[in-house]
Amino acid sequence: MTTGKINVSVENIFPLIKKFLYNDHEIFLRELISNGTDATLKLKHLTNIGEAKVEYGNPILEVKIDKEGKKLHIIDQGIGMTSEEVEKYINQLAFSGAEEFLEKYKDTAKDSGIIGHFGLGFYSAFMVASKVEIITKSYKDEPAAHWTCDGSPEFSLEPADKTTRGTEIILHIAEDSLEFLEDFKIRELLNKYNKFMPIPIKFGTTTETLPKPEDAPEDYTTETIEVDNIINNPNPAWTKQPADLNEEDYKAFYHELYPMQFEEPLFNIHLNVDYPFNLTGILYFPKLGSDMQIQKDKIQLYQNQVFVTDNVEGIVPEFLMMLRGVVDSPDIPLNVSRSGLQADGAVKKISNYITRKVADKLKSLFNENREDFESKWNDIKIVLEYGMLSEDKFYEKAGAFVLYPTVDDKYYTLEELKENLKDAQTDKDGKLVVLYAGNKEAQHSYIEIAKEKGYQVLLLDSPIISHLIQKLENDNKDLTFVRVDSDHIDNLIKKDEVVISKLSEDQQNNLKSAVEAVVNKQTYTVQLEALDSQAAPFIITQPEFMRRMKEMSQTGGGGMFGMGNMPEMYNLVVNTNSPLASTILNTEDKTNQEHLVKQALDLAKLSQNLLKGEALTTFVKRSFEMIK
Amino acid sequence: MTTGKINVSVENIFPLIKKFLYNDHEIFLRELISNGTDATLKLKHLTNIGEAKVEYGNPILEVKIDKEGKKLHIIDQGIGMTSEEVEKYINQLAFSGAEEFLEKYKDTAKDSGIIGHFGLGFYSAFMVASKVEIITKSYKDEPAAHWTCDGSPEFSLEPADKTTRGTEIILHIAEDSLEFLEDFKIRELLNKYNKFMPIPIKFGTTTETLPKPEDAPEDYTTETIEVDNIINNPNPAWTKQPADLNEEDYKAFYHELYPMQFEEPLFNIHLNVDYPFNLTGILYFPKLGSDMQIQKDKIQLYQNQVFVTDNVEGIVPEFLMMLRGVVDSPDIPLNVSRSGLQADGAVKKISNYITRKVADKLKSLFNENREDFESKWNDIKIVLEYGMLSEDKFYEKAGAFVLYPTVDDKYYTLEELKENLKDAQTDKDGKLVVLYAGNKEAQHSYIEIAKEKGYQVLLLDSPIISHLIQKLENDNKDLTFVRVDSDHIDNLIKKDEVVISKLSEDQQNNLKSAVEAVVNKQTYTVQLEALDSQAAPFIITQPEFMRRMKEMSQTGGGGMFGMGNMPEMYNLVVNTNSPLASTILNTEDKTNQEHLVKQALDLAKLSQNLLKGEALTTFVKRSFEMIK
Repeated sequence: MTTGKINVSVENIFPLIKKFLYNDHEIFLRELISNGTDATLKLKHLTNIGEAKVEYGNPILEVKIDKEGKKLHIIDQGIGMTSEEVEKYINQLAFSGAEEFLEKYKDTAKDSGIIGHFGLGFYSAFMVASKVEIITKSYKDEPAAHWTCDGSPEFSLEPADKTTRGTEIILHIAEDSLEFLEDFKIRELLNKYNKFMPIPIKFGTTTETLPKPEDAPEDYTTETIEVDNIINNPNPAWTKQPADLNEEDYKAFYHELYPMQFEEPLFNIHLNVDYPFNLTGILYFPKLGSDMQIQKDKIQLYQNQVFVTDNVEGIVPEFLMMLRGVVDSPDIPLNVSRSGLQADGAVKKISNYITRKVADKLKSLFNENREDFESKWNDIKIVLEYGMLSEDKFYEKAGAFVLYPTVDDKYYTLEELKENLKDAQTDKDGKLVVLYAGNKEAQHSYIEIAKEKGYQVLLLDSPIISHLIQKLENDNKDLTFVRVDSDHIDNLIKKDEVVISKLSEDQQNNLKSAVEAVVNKQTYTVQLEALDSQAAPFIITQPEFMRRMKEMSQTGGGGMFGMGNMPEMYNLVVNTNSPLASTILNTEDKTNQEHLVKQALDLAKLSQNLLKGEALTTFVKRSFEMIK
Repeated sequence: MTTGKINVSVENIFPLIKKFLYNDHEIFLRELISNGTDATLKLKHLTNIGEAKVEYGNPILEVKIDKEGKKLHIIDQGIGMTSEEVEKYINQLAFSGAEEFLEKYKDTAKDSGIIGHFGLGFYSAFMVASKVEIITKSYKDEPAAHWTCDGSPEFSLEPADKTTRGTEIILHIAEDSLEFLEDFKIRELLNKYNKFMPIPIKFGTTTETLPKPEDAPEDYTTETIEVDNIINNPNPAWTKQPADLNEEDYKAFYHELYPMQFEEPLFNIHLNVDYPFNLTGILYFPKLGSDMQIQKDKIQLYQNQVFVTDNVEGIVPEFLMMLRGVVDSPDIPLNVSRSGLQADGAVKKISNYITRKVADKLKSLFNENREDFESKWNDIKIVLEYGMLSEDKFYEKAGAFVLYPTVDDKYYTLEELKENLKDAQTDKDGKLVVLYAGNKEAQHSYIEIAKEKGYQVLLLDSPIISHLIQKLENDNKDLTFVRVDSDHIDNLIKKDEVVISKLSEDQQNNLKSAVEAVVNKQTYTVQLEALDSQAAPFIITQPEFMRRMKEMSQTGGGGMFGMGNMPEMYNLVVNTNSPLASTILNTEDKTNQEHLVKQALDLAKLSQNLLKGEALTTFVKRSFEMIK
């Protein structure tokens, strides 16, 4: 038996790293700026703990384009490297200096914000550069070093005459990557990946006019100065304590994140947890209008203030994907190129934490200012209702803040709803019947009838509401929901009252025949009812159960298989006590009787939005004739 | 100056490969089966060219679970390895044996279907296994070898007594990955990644009952045999020549791809190109109903019959993302974990090829059987119309097959449309006016009026149609589109006819005042017109330009900034020649006059679907009163 060690040759692995590790070549800039940031943060830490006896000062990073020389410079004023350190950190692929640093200073440097992890980022420079130079001077009193490599992977290392502390990376941009010498392209990348990194990043300068001195002579000519153009905000709101921020700060940060969003967010949720994982961030509830921006401005994921992705699937619970904002966590396990999420138990914990935090915030917003919360309900309900359906933990907490509005803009919690409705709307079998409408306009006449009876009608108009109602009924056995147009009002909430029909049984049979002779029996079932004589003579209703199953099956999941494609079926309620019923019965002429039934049916259809197309055109023509 | 070579130590790089290279741990099975497939294809090639003097036979792969021993076996009957080859291929990370093979046999092996590329796949085994064994016997007459490694990265290598050709990989599944010992889990993975791989894969056996022999004795007991359970189809339809497939074959393959799809696809497009890149595949146009399946059953991307992803963004043009099917190309550059697309010019070429191929196929379908093509138009138009808007190349070809249907189910190409309409619908300024409706039911009365005039009305009801109309008008300066309800018919297509008003100027002013006293002037502009006396007395119209801009701005892009939120505004056309106009004028009693105008306005609103909510309830009540 032989034993040995698996080996790896740099000739095999280097091309893979250069060409195939990262999907996007543009990543190189993020990686190099992250390295420069780490170099600066390391120096900060060492001066803090007194190990580096130098002045930390106000170091910045600089990105410079040399278009003629086809070079891109990334310059930091951080810790720098000695020749020995270049040998150790640069010449050894996949050796992570950041990990080594965190290990060495683990007692003090835990929260230093060091970004590096895998020890591969630097080599991404070769994705866009044919040659890379490093000129670096350590904070230690040692000569500067100059490293050069054309990606072969041969390198050369020699002394340099750099006298200032820090590291300059020079990329000789390859012919197929010349776009990275364009000002607008670099600006775009800095804005995407580095907008909130913790060290100021300079990219170019701007000219500012000096204010005219008070004692300026008459022939004073305006003086200008060059000012560094800092492209990032090193202290974004989410890194601060909630106590240090007010509403205006949160709103300002929202517009910083989404410069193209003109509307204000409804409210925000500041995330801040240390244990068992580290996570900060701010989530915003936007006003979810009908505009197309929703999909575009997504929640952004950062790690130590470096932008990673706007695909937060798995990290943020699905029902909160419509929110906007930032999540920053060094503890989210990502793959080497940071583009993919590792399947991991920690991620599930983060998702659960976010759910809980959002529920707690909603509860406190509701308790602190109910009126304000109610005014925002319409803009947030779709998120909350979807959360109740998809996350059990959220559903359990939802009782404390989820609202059920009436058509008259009263807002009840579920418990309040039960309390307020129970006297008037409990039926003869002891069930509490909740009436609701899906559309105030379309179901107007039915709502009016219910209100005349002294009942309250909820307005539940989300596309997924039938699923939520089904769940609420399952969990509240004493509760039943019926849409206000699913039967005549006296049948919806059955009381022990009996209304006596003015018509004899024979008359009722005749009336039924007369009506059935006109209506389409496949679609309408004629149902005679002895109602109040003032109630509408003809009313079209659609049974709750069938309509709800159809809706559930159409919005995906639930309902019954194939129900979504069943034809629509209705009941035609004929009020035997209405004057029109008598008129129809007493009209001897068959044609006239038919004409009456037709007109009454058309009017009932109008109330249920069922009179359309040719039938509507005919009705309108006939009605114009009647008034001409 | 010192020079040297960047180095890499296996201790640094091995943990990265094990833990962070792949997002999904489940990938290991795809990688190991790909290796087994390559080993078999290599043997096939060597026997084909006579270099291996052994019988190729009918080799299969086998996957076996040993739940008690916590082991997973992947066994092939391929080329095998000698001890020296194990040293060379296994002990050296990122050395690709597949690349070496293709290089060595480049003259003959180009189309051998070899999968491997990066030389990293094998190590993905360590994502789920605490220890990995290889027992392998080469096709050459040499003893078998047994390699063992616990991922440390120390290995041991010793002779083995395996006598059959091929390689067996044994994974000792780690405690945190025990799910990969579950039958259903392995079956799921095989079905996802390996369903169409080119070598048969056996996973378990099934029991089959032998047919009873004709001369069976009376006390014959049923005999059963164990049959290998082959989980894949090694010769999927897309790998065959179109000439060898008929309609039924294509449909059968569709259902093989999407077992949960019960509907038949409308038609298919077989992709097959060798140069300048290699690509095969079959795309299907599904019936795009309103069901939720659309998003789920996406186009699948394969490389040499190995499933890679169902995210084909970038490869398939966006407007074809709603299609279904398979694209297989070894030339699509992916990153090491095959999860991300490399930004690359070749990809753009592939996307362009697919666009052209789809356009050509549509053209030939149209030419071969126009009637059939027309019958499918409604199900495919959204894809084609979106293609015209988003891909210039597609737009250029679209004239040959894109259809414009009328409300009476006639279908015209753009050229036919011009030819057929020009006599009747050219206005006095020489412009060809195309009338269209967005909804046959909702605009019924307007369509009828146009048809009575002898005009044809198109039915254009896609959500993006306003954008397409805009584009067509830009490119066809003699053409103008107006929706049928955007003005009175005589104004939509202006001819040189003059209709004389029956009313004097004074009477017209009085009429106008009477109407304006009732209608809401913010919403309705009253417009007196001397129309045919038989035409409707009141008609509500909405100007084309404003409505179209609003629609464009609501469906994203185009239109004018902020137009989407402007209030709706209409014209109220009053026909001064209608009998009702005279009746209104001659009604002295102000209340009665107002009543008449109100009723007429309500009827006009009904025709334009504008009478809703309380206004509708009042109208219905009033109308019931009138017939009581």
